[in-house]
Amino acid sequence: MIKTDVQSERDTREITIDRVGVKNIRYPIVVEDRRNINQQTVADIALYVDLQEHERGTHMSRFLEVLNKYHKEDIISNLEQFMADLRKRMGSETAFAIIDFPYFIEKEAPVSKIKSLLSYQCHFQASLKEEYRLVIGVKVPITTLCPCSKEISDNGAHSQRSYVNIQVTLGEFVWLEELIEMVEASASCEIYSLLKRPDEKYVTERAYANPRFAEDIVREITLKLRQDRRIASFKVETENLESIHDHNAYAGVWSNNFWEIKY
Amino acid sequence: MIKTDVQSERDTREITIDRVGVKNIRYPIVVEDRRNINQQTVADIALYVDLQEHERGTHMSRFLEVLNKYHKEDIISNLEQFMADLRKRMGSETAFAIIDFPYFIEKEAPVSKIKSLLSYQCHFQASLKEEYRLVIGVKVPITTLCPCSKEISDNGAHSQRSYVNIQVTLGEFVWLEELIEMVEASASCEIYSLLKRPDEKYVTERAYANPRFAEDIVREITLKLRQDRRIASFKVETENLESIHDHNAYAGVWSNNFWEIKY
Amino acid sequence: MIKTDVQSERDTREITIDRVGVKNIRYPIVVEDRRNINQQTVADIALYVDLQEHERGTHMSRFLEVLNKYHKEDIISNLEQFMADLRKRMGSETAFAIIDFPYFIEKEAPVSKIKSLLSYQCHFQASLKEEYRLVIGVKVPITTLCPCSKEISDNGAHSQRSYVNIQVTLGEFVWLEELIEMVEASASCEIYSLLKRPDEKYVTERAYANPRFAEDIVREITLKLRQDRRIASFKVETENLESIHDHNAYAGVWSNNFWEIKY
Amino acid sequence: MIKTDVQSERDTREITIDRVGVKNIRYPIVVEDRRNINQQTVADIALYVDLQEHERGTHMSRFLEVLNKYHKEDIISNLEQFMADLRKRMGSETAFAIIDFPYFIEKEAPVSKIKSLLSYQCHFQASLKEEYRLVIGVKVPITTLCPCSKEISDNGAHSQRSYVNIQVTLGEFVWLEELIEMVEASASCEIYSLLKRPDEKYVTERAYANPRFAEDIVREITLKLRQDRRIASFKVETENLESIHDHNAYAGVWSNNFWEIKY
Repeated sequence: MIKTDVQSERDTREITIDRVGVKNIRYPIVVEDRRNINQQTVADIALYVDLQEHERGTHMSRFLEVLNKYHKEDIISNLEQFMADLRKRMGSETAFAIIDFPYFIEKEAPVSKIKSLLSYQCHFQASLKEEYRLVIGVKVPITTLCPCSKEISDNGAHSQRSYVNIQVTLGEFVWLEELIEMVEASASCEIYSLLKRPDEKYVTERAYANPRFAEDIVREITLKLRQDRRIASFKVETENLESIHDHNAYAGVWSNNFWEIKY
Repeated sequence: MIKTDVQSERDTREITIDRVGVKNIRYPIVVEDRRNINQQTVADIALYVDLQEHERGTHMSRFLEVLNKYHKEDIISNLEQFMADLRKRMGSETAFAIIDFPYFIEKEAPVSKIKSLLSYQCHFQASLKEEYRLVIGVKVPITTLCPCSKEISDNGAHSQRSYVNIQVTLGEFVWLEELIEMVEASASCEIYSLLKRPDEKYVTERAYANPRFAEDIVREITLKLRQDRRIASFKVETENLESIHDHNAYAGVWSNNFWEIKY
Repeated sequence: MIKTDVQSERDTREITIDRVGVKNIRYPIVVEDRRNINQQTVADIALYVDLQEHERGTHMSRFLEVLNKYHKEDIISNLEQFMADLRKRMGSETAFAIIDFPYFIEKEAPVSKIKSLLSYQCHFQASLKEEYRLVIGVKVPITTLCPCSKEISDNGAHSQRSYVNIQVTLGEFVWLEELIEMVEASASCEIYSLLKRPDEKYVTERAYANPRFAEDIVREITLKLRQDRRIASFKVETENLESIHDHNAYAGVWSNNFWEIKY
Repeated sequence: MIKTDVQSERDTREITIDRVGVKNIRYPIVVEDRRNINQQTVADIALYVDLQEHERGTHMSRFLEVLNKYHKEDIISNLEQFMADLRKRMGSETAFAIIDFPYFIEKEAPVSKIKSLLSYQCHFQASLKEEYRLVIGVKVPITTLCPCSKEISDNGAHSQRSYVNIQVTLGEFVWLEELIEMVEASASCEIYSLLKRPDEKYVTERAYANPRFAEDIVREITLKLRQDRRIASFKVETENLESIHDHNAYAGVWSNNFWEIKY
């Protein structure tokens, strides 16, 4: 008996599918950092295409074939080519990729100068239709100290860990490290994995000297992003894990022209 | 010493904040179901407003004050009024609310007719600027059985649990139960909490008789949504927890005019 | 053709199954609080039994039948009876239940006395073999302020949100509210959903006046638990979402006789 | 002014802390696989020690110092030495480490023989007191097909993705790959990332020919673990993401002598 290729059947429902594909693929990738060192890390990947109205189904295994073809190579450093290959192999008009991965930076403690690694969760979104679009993003942990709490209190001020999510499209190349530095310089204080006593004194006093609301954080970063000619569009958000509440405080600013894959 | 109200300070950075507020508030709410019975459930709530460029900070405690004012009442059934109160109390131009909650429906097993409860995770998004907008959404667990696997195999066909996410804006009132029924009728088979042996036979055979790709699921539902005059715009997505892979298959369709709170 | 009841087949592999059952059932439940008011909330439930070596399978639908039988009643207030019914219906030697749910307490802000709701995640573990055992637990969000940071810094001290997990077995009845109060009294400061400016001044200054390491938190609570004759055994843990790091600090103490369902 | 080392203060509460340390540290590690190839992956690490009753606090930064010392080396391959260093540096009686990481295996599709990577989440627990103990564990995704559904239905049988969690202590060295193969050989069918049409036919028919309850899965694996002289103790669990329900089925068996870090 001849078996039909069911996915290739003609569909008569006249409905284009905006996005179809595979999610939650764990995959080892290599990312080059600012020191030109190749970091080996593990990504969580989603790959999608659009599907024309006359096609019943996409061929899901082909997403993996394209991914495997890039196994030994650097998916991130050849992402535009990867997207072109994906679109071609799938026979689609548009290809989308969402790639999340931890990225490590060796930081020096502010006083003791002891080095330790800090992990930053990165989030890349690529799409290829007529043109190639890339959003690069990174989530940066920082300390925030509340200006209102400092102002009204005789002693101390509540502080907390916050996560800043910065996403940009670029006119010109920018290192992830540069985005991270923009965020860290706007914090009450930046965060380190390893702090000795003199370092802890430093970060405590620095945070106390630099109180910031969630609103201040996103505005400070927005000022820097607007001044940077290489940044074409952006979104910046912070979420503060308030130490005096069990809910979080949030603030977000985005440029009018910011576009990202939403679904 | 006079303490300043730091949030009320004049800001000179000339940056409007698109969204500022509070997230991850757990709150008991009441939802009326199609049988006109009040369900008591627990919501996860986020409340936001915009912040004008001359204002340094929003007053975060006021979000909670507005919420508490509605404590004994039905936030969901008076949501437009709630949004107007929120915008007024915060002194903002726009107010946003995102409300997630489990919603229970008593279902009858297909053969034994034994009743059991199934939980559906709902997702509401409301905004109020010049006009009031409401997106109602619900995530529906279903069974999908793969048409390709059935076609090519001498015996059996792989099936899996899938989650359909349907979100709509309405011209006219629609019950959540109606959206859920649209989804369940488009599945290989619907899902129940309690199935006796004759029921399990029924759902197994029904799924085998109704193979559906992820693409089929979203197209079937799209046809129904387009035909329903009460639906103004929509998004429908499915995610299949593939039984033969450790990644998920995804398909999504949305109407051109679909709008939702993205950030 | 006669269909076999496969689960009831005789198993010859001679392996007793320690625990078999159903997980991730969302279910509406009612819990009576210290004010004798019935709270309606939503639980996440797991139900297990052991399975003798000669039985091939348990009948999974029966777990749901027992649960449904208690639908309109109070599962929590009749939990021992529920466990006996479960064990009987399943024909097993042992029955286990794990029940998680949010529990709401109305708290008064310390200065303004404004009331707001705070949610506490509860965790119950019940088992019935020869005897009935019940572990009740609750996760309490608190503020912790670092004693070392305060000591070494000229100004301020870093603080953060922490979660204390307290679990106890009881000789005599204890309200969840009493466990929560034990934890909150041991914190640098307790947490509220709604704080006005004078309240924020109060909690900031109170935390600064009461610095606590993770180690101090669990020791303070341990002292109280040991002094309470009604507590038969306990475990107490804290996890601090450190504001100066992107990792958490942890401390845990448990009594030698503490027993809980582990798997 | 002389600043006190607060952590080193004498504590008079007479409470030993069972476990104190740091959680949620993301860290790059290297793991050697059965082909003697070094895999670079990213771990989530927790490190704990006990704290004697007279000591007020542990020195949290020292956990990171020990970790950093091993940065370029292979933490996993020198884990016993790492534990000894940790215990010594912390001045404690006991040291504990919990290390989770994804581990990749290249698998060949059953018919087409096309290769693709599959990720397996590993879970190591180490402790050092008088003696060194190591639990190695891995979570293996598999397909399960329901024997009851197959027996009672005229066509088809429901299948789903399941996750088997296997944890062992060893008398003699065993590769992770061997544990994974034990699990996969006990499934209705094993799982692959990339399957072409002939492969999908194969896995569908194979699963249909090998129906397995959750109970069967853990018993089959238990038989193999008991027969393997190198395995000193074990726990094996499966969780089936039932395709006909929105809850999961669970079964677990453990040897009487199985011990793991619980807290």
